[in-house]
Amino acid sequence: MAANTISLSISSNVAASKNFNSFESRGFIAPPTIYLPVASSKSKPGELSLSSTTIFRSRVRAGASASQLMNEPLYDKRSISAPTIVEVDLGNRSYPIYIGAGLLDQSELLQRHVHGKRVLVVTNERVAPLYLDKTIDALTRGNPNVTVESVILPDGEKYKDMDTLMKVFDKAIESRLDRRCTFVALGGGVIGDMCGYAAASYLRGVNFIQIPTTVMAQVDSSVGGKTGINHRLGKNMIGAFYQPQCVLVDTDTLNTLPDREMASGLAEVIKYGLIRDTEFFEWQEKNIEALLARDPAALAYAIKRSCENKADVVSQDEKESGLRATLNLGHTFGHAIETGFGYGEWLHGEAVAAGTVMAVDMSYRLGWIDNSIVERVNKILKRAKLPTTPPKSMTVSMFKSIMAVDKKVADGLLRLILLKGPLGNCVFTGDYDREALDATLRAFSKS
Amino acid sequence: MAANTISLSISSNVAASKNFNSFESRGFIAPPTIYLPVASSKSKPGELSLSSTTIFRSRVRAGASASQLMNEPLYDKRSISAPTIVEVDLGNRSYPIYIGAGLLDQSELLQRHVHGKRVLVVTNERVAPLYLDKTIDALTRGNPNVTVESVILPDGEKYKDMDTLMKVFDKAIESRLDRRCTFVALGGGVIGDMCGYAAASYLRGVNFIQIPTTVMAQVDSSVGGKTGINHRLGKNMIGAFYQPQCVLVDTDTLNTLPDREMASGLAEVIKYGLIRDTEFFEWQEKNIEALLARDPAALAYAIKRSCENKADVVSQDEKESGLRATLNLGHTFGHAIETGFGYGEWLHGEAVAAGTVMAVDMSYRLGWIDNSIVERVNKILKRAKLPTTPPKSMTVSMFKSIMAVDKKVADGLLRLILLKGPLGNCVFTGDYDREALDATLRAFSKS
Repeated sequence: MAANTISLSISSNVAASKNFNSFESRGFIAPPTIYLPVASSKSKPGELSLSSTTIFRSRVRAGASASQLMNEPLYDKRSISAPTIVEVDLGNRSYPIYIGAGLLDQSELLQRHVHGKRVLVVTNERVAPLYLDKTIDALTRGNPNVTVESVILPDGEKYKDMDTLMKVFDKAIESRLDRRCTFVALGGGVIGDMCGYAAASYLRGVNFIQIPTTVMAQVDSSVGGKTGINHRLGKNMIGAFYQPQCVLVDTDTLNTLPDREMASGLAEVIKYGLIRDTEFFEWQEKNIEALLARDPAALAYAIKRSCENKADVVSQDEKESGLRATLNLGHTFGHAIETGFGYGEWLHGEAVAAGTVMAVDMSYRLGWIDNSIVERVNKILKRAKLPTTPPKSMTVSMFKSIMAVDKKVADGLLRLILLKGPLGNCVFTGDYDREALDATLRAFSKS
Repeated sequence: MAANTISLSISSNVAASKNFNSFESRGFIAPPTIYLPVASSKSKPGELSLSSTTIFRSRVRAGASASQLMNEPLYDKRSISAPTIVEVDLGNRSYPIYIGAGLLDQSELLQRHVHGKRVLVVTNERVAPLYLDKTIDALTRGNPNVTVESVILPDGEKYKDMDTLMKVFDKAIESRLDRRCTFVALGGGVIGDMCGYAAASYLRGVNFIQIPTTVMAQVDSSVGGKTGINHRLGKNMIGAFYQPQCVLVDTDTLNTLPDREMASGLAEVIKYGLIRDTEFFEWQEKNIEALLARDPAALAYAIKRSCENKADVVSQDEKESGLRATLNLGHTFGHAIETGFGYGEWLHGEAVAAGTVMAVDMSYRLGWIDNSIVERVNKILKRAKLPTTPPKSMTVSMFKSIMAVDKKVADGLLRLILLKGPLGNCVFTGDYDREALDATLRAFSKS
């Protein structure tokens, strides 16, 4: 461990977390210690190679084997009217994630989080024909005082830009929406990120609700308040931390999801296992084909457990001063692929999958993990129909130049999330041998 | 008073406020009660005409006549190295406003608030030749680790838009600024608002510092964290509440301010007197020509007292749930003038001056103030070389259509800041006779 890393017992903090208590009630035990980063602001000028290193240990689920998990009554048709609720604990900005089948048919769930009498639904050309009417119905049924406007954006990451965002503002202002209105994001990660940033900025902030309709959005991007748009030079460079009033995950919306989008979302599910939840990874190794086949029980369980992991991390580190960065395993390489190869050419999860393989390769080159982890990661990603190498057109210099503007750069030093130790453990660090990074880039892209 | 208005003694809150303590130490006494608004979210659907009404009383300065104020040792050449400090009390987002002559020559003041080693100065074509070198010098003198980039925007309200804002992001990303950087706003209100919003959004939030160089920015817009840009359909429709690390008011920068800009800033100074500080208004009535003539002592005093008023209000109501809205006296009419007549055709303070006359006219038509206040407001604005009627091209329907998208509209009801009672008292209310608004619009614009 680097010299400027300290270890602190934070068991009292952990016990104080509602989310962690909910983990405990289902059989999790608290890790005895967790390593907190030395704030990088304390690093001295010039000491570029000595940033803080943090080791984040995985949760251990005691007394339940992976096979038992699959045999639990995870999904019960009779309980359709009672969604699973995962709470994101952020003081006066706390909010629930509702997970279940048919939730869009339960209008009271949505309506209880609408502020004011005016709603703007932000969606895209692909999702609107499928779910816009249903969403408007859920917002207005038995509630004639509420009026709903909608804005339908073009679909895809390449439209996650300022020009498209302005269409949301145009519609809101033309509709004379005032501060007591609610924006609703209906769609995948791009829609959620854009609608959230629009809500954060419109009249300096209005309420908003996330209705994610892809696995990617349901297990990751709709939770935690990261919003924003891309710049031609970098992913998510412009945005805000801005929390929704609630996240409503209707798992029925996955029935219309294209296979490629389904696989893309699994990259983030696999990420949670690798960085902090060994048992979940082992469960995935047994159930990845069930997920791809959209087995409702498997999907409901994976979404719930992913949201629990995300909510737990976000509750501890909303603004990404350390721990939250670990959720970006593979993302620095992945964002470089998305930016360099062209926004939307690869889906986000596809780029993250290749990026994860690169991060794991680099961890192995550093001697931080053994080869069995490398093999298991490659294997599960391939089974999930995800790429394990970047596009052939990516070069070492493209990677380097795009990664230099990554948000995890601090005072010129690129910090990365790397695996270290047994499966389920990772570090967020700038304290690594640059040769290992160069070797990984050379191994995965042309010079 | 409306039925749904409650009155609460908040003397304990007032005593707890650092800012108020600083008022007390100079001879202010706390008003015994202050009226707090019933949250408008509680108003029932359909009850549009029954919004909350709030009466905000002025501070009363005991034992010091207005003439005494002018005779106090307000400005002392010998104390040039000790700035006056007004604290904006916002918990962990508190920050100081430094006010004084020659503060840009005191590099340690600025440097203590710079985070990281990279700074981006955002300024405009008019201010850059005057103060950019001086500012860069203040940021880097004795501090060779800090590097400064700058982006020079076109000057004027008509460039306070998304296209111009993107130039800031372009520069920041091309310069590879990371999260540990600091944005510095060097200029008037437009620059401060745009730089602040850019800082709020770049990488989801970086540090920033305000160096206001106009009276308008020094007494009002640089303090309190309102940032944003205009939309073609409305002023400041897109933005964020985002507080700076500090505000540095070097009163020497006013030496180069055009007369029209000087007068424009005085509209906001006069506002503080009208809504909450009778003694300050009476002082202005004695000293308005001294302010126009840039008497250093008079200017320093007016800036300090304005900042104290602003800081006190913002500390109590950062996100404008009630009290803070009163700072917008005349602004709803004024924003309509700016939007309708064309951004930049009139300066913000010019539009606010005409808007203030309209708000005062309406207050008089409602029977809420006597005619002496109407006359005093008209007289002081004329002495300040400010307009007291809107541009001739403004029509009643232009006012109505633009005011309908004002940020103070709630559930379709336009709330206004109007004077009520003796000088120094105002209300923020939607509970007024619509006929009075119509009569005012007809009196000041063509049908």
